[in-house]
Amino acid sequence: MNYCNDCGATTHQTIPDGDNRQRHVCSGCETIHYQNPKVIAGVLPTWGDQVLLCRRDIEPRRGYWTMPAGFLENGESSLEGAVRECYEESLATVEACQLLGVFDIPYIDQVYILYRGQLSAAEFAPTAESSEVALFDRTAIPWGELAFPVVEMALDLHFADQRPFSPGHHLVTRPWRPQARG
Amino acid sequence: MNYCNDCGATTHQTIPDGDNRQRHVCSGCETIHYQNPKVIAGVLPTWGDQVLLCRRDIEPRRGYWTMPAGFLENGESSLEGAVRECYEESLATVEACQLLGVFDIPYIDQVYILYRGQLSAAEFAPTAESSEVALFDRTAIPWGELAFPVVEMALDLHFADQRPFSPGHHLVTRPWRPQARG
Repeated sequence: MNYCNDCGATTHQTIPDGDNRQRHVCSGCETIHYQNPKVIAGVLPTWGDQVLLCRRDIEPRRGYWTMPAGFLENGESSLEGAVRECYEESLATVEACQLLGVFDIPYIDQVYILYRGQLSAAEFAPTAESSEVALFDRTAIPWGELAFPVVEMALDLHFADQRPFSPGHHLVTRPWRPQARG
Repeated sequence: MNYCNDCGATTHQTIPDGDNRQRHVCSGCETIHYQNPKVIAGVLPTWGDQVLLCRRDIEPRRGYWTMPAGFLENGESSLEGAVRECYEESLATVEACQLLGVFDIPYIDQVYILYRGQLSAAEFAPTAESSEVALFDRTAIPWGELAFPVVEMALDLHFADQRPFSPGHHLVTRPWRPQARG
């Protein structure tokens, strides 16, 4: 970061008062520009014992297989983002989604929030982002051609944990509104 | 956003090729400046049947009670962030942490990733961020003085789900390194 988004003046790195980390601070308006990890939301679509994977037709890792996932956008929940990415990458719709896990990748400042959900129908197709979309039995998964380690981890977790959804790990979305409670 | 962080030229909003959302794009170097939700990492410290809460001594909601939580920093996992925030706000250390839940607040572009963990000892104290730090039985929780709805939701979830950790909802941290698998 070289310039302030707000006023266009140059920024410098310093530890602001009351902080303990180097931040980019504007030399003009003194705005502190925090930089934080990004969330990647995704879902593993299931159809009976099978899972849906997409062969990436975009970089990075073009040609390798992944589950639908992508950067969470402002204004959407992680589940909404996961469902949107699923449709964008595979034209598939999912329902009855459960939280599968949280996967941190601090080396690249990313947090994956991954769900699994049932395909509403066995309907899917290639897209601008995926050259192939297909269902795989566990034994047929192209383990050696997975795009990212987190995909392998999510698949391992899914197949290891075939129990019904644990209600102790809710996803909840609600507005930011303090409320009274007796 | 008015100016490009990279080159200092003005930005404008447009839908880039291959995208479907308005983005801030630099009029000079054409960098696309994506804006995404921020992660807040936190932990509910437990001590037997009690939970630890902090009375906020900073805005927003100064004077109201919360569980330790704060913005996740680049380079740390969500659990590392939660443990760090816990110490910063209460001087307490936690162990045996479990994922409690993911709480989306899309209205303000935030995702809470909340854990619960056992206090290593009944040792804690006020800090620059917390005017009081205390353990509460369920019946003694100051429900009417909680700082944010997500705190109430996390407490409800914690007390509703007293089962042992479900291994189906792992937290995993590992480097970004594709690997072979037969």
